[in-house]
Amino acid sequence: MSRIASRLTKLGLTLPPPMQAPGGIKLPFPWINVRGERVIISGHGPQNPDGSLAGPFGKVGAEVTPEQAHEVARKVGLSILGSLQHELGDLDRIAGWVRVFGMVNSAPSFGRRPALINGFSDLIPCCGSEIGHHARSAMGVAGLPFYLAVEIEREVLLRR
Amino acid sequence: MSRIASRLTKLGLTLPPPMQAPGGIKLPFPWINVRGERVIISGHGPQNPDGSLAGPFGKVGAEVTPEQAHEVARKVGLSILGSLQHELGDLDRIAGWVRVFGMVNSAPSFGRRPALINGFSDLIPCCGSEIGHHARSAMGVAGLPFYLAVEIEREVLLRR
Amino acid sequence: MSRIASRLTKLGLTLPPPMQAPGGIKLPFPWINVRGERVIISGHGPQNPDGSLAGPFGKVGAEVTPEQAHEVARKVGLSILGSLQHELGDLDRIAGWVRVFGMVNSAPSFGRRPALINGFSDLIPCCGSEIGHHARSAMGVAGLPFYLAVEIEREVLLRR
Repeated sequence: MSRIASRLTKLGLTLPPPMQAPGGIKLPFPWINVRGERVIISGHGPQNPDGSLAGPFGKVGAEVTPEQAHEVARKVGLSILGSLQHELGDLDRIAGWVRVFGMVNSAPSFGRRPALINGFSDLIPCCGSEIGHHARSAMGVAGLPFYLAVEIEREVLLRR
Repeated sequence: MSRIASRLTKLGLTLPPPMQAPGGIKLPFPWINVRGERVIISGHGPQNPDGSLAGPFGKVGAEVTPEQAHEVARKVGLSILGSLQHELGDLDRIAGWVRVFGMVNSAPSFGRRPALINGFSDLIPCCGSEIGHHARSAMGVAGLPFYLAVEIEREVLLRR
Repeated sequence: MSRIASRLTKLGLTLPPPMQAPGGIKLPFPWINVRGERVIISGHGPQNPDGSLAGPFGKVGAEVTPEQAHEVARKVGLSILGSLQHELGDLDRIAGWVRVFGMVNSAPSFGRRPALINGFSDLIPCCGSEIGHHARSAMGVAGLPFYLAVEIEREVLLRR
């Protein structure tokens, strides 16, 4: 078992199966795009254990509480790790995180976004602090596909 | 004639001339930034055949219908291909799409964004499926420059 | 003194000290992530001379005027240059700007965003026009961390 997979197991974390879009929606792009050393990761939402998109859905500060959004961000992190595992075969091929871009579906008056996306960054210890070192931006948006509460785009680098 | 240009012609698609910003607005950046193999593409809107920004303008779900927004996304794709043609001289220099980031000017209650940005991804066949393979994110935003309905940022890679 | 630092001095511009997040908020990521030649810059806000986040805070078009937002964007540019100086030691190591992504905390009816982000791009002369050549996108968002009026994410390239 690879180093990162072993850490995930120790932490009691299970990666979900490949993401399934809600019925009837055609998504003409892959979840992961490997171009040389760069791995560009499409905007992910959280998943249920069966691979479907997980709720709660709606706007943080209205239908979704900040505490729920923190947990959603953590699930998005697991969903991305799942897609990477599926595409790369071995998470230990990842040399470093590059960029994390967090989009929070926000009620207009809501301004505590950075703490929410920490639910994602809290997964850094799975990879180690040097690999997990990443630039991050977070923003509140007017809406997200499928009424997701949190969507995260990301890029990582492969070992040469 | 290059391979991609030939496909565009067969599909009856015409690329617009260089984008013209509305009068009086100074945009101190280029539409395309080539840095080594990487080609980073500034946020584009849709264009009319004369190069000016095309409507309809406003928020999807209010002033702009989803069907109109799908067509706007397709026009943004042509606008970006036009900028690339103008900058690169030959679209066949493109080795691969990297990333597509779609911003939809959205009424707060609107959540069906991924299907809209398909208007852009539907242009993949112009380039071939391997080159057109791309990571994608879509989000609803509170506003866009010049009241655009859709703005798309993108990155492609050049052949070495 | 390096070339860029010298230009900043001639222009009467002073770079702020390292950014300090408001009390009690944990930000588990660095402001700058160097990965090979690439330097990915986390979303920055404007800073006061003491390193704290600078106001005015709130939405452009409501609590913040467009003129104020233009000045905020300029301060974000100085904040990013400050982080780069702190991380790289010498701003002359920068070979080129790659990408600027501007997020404006916007009242729903506000659509004049590109001119605001010019407050950032106006800093190009500090670096020279060839180095400062950059792709740019701007958007209005529903909210920003800490109620910032403007947040900017960016990437630059190092000399080999």
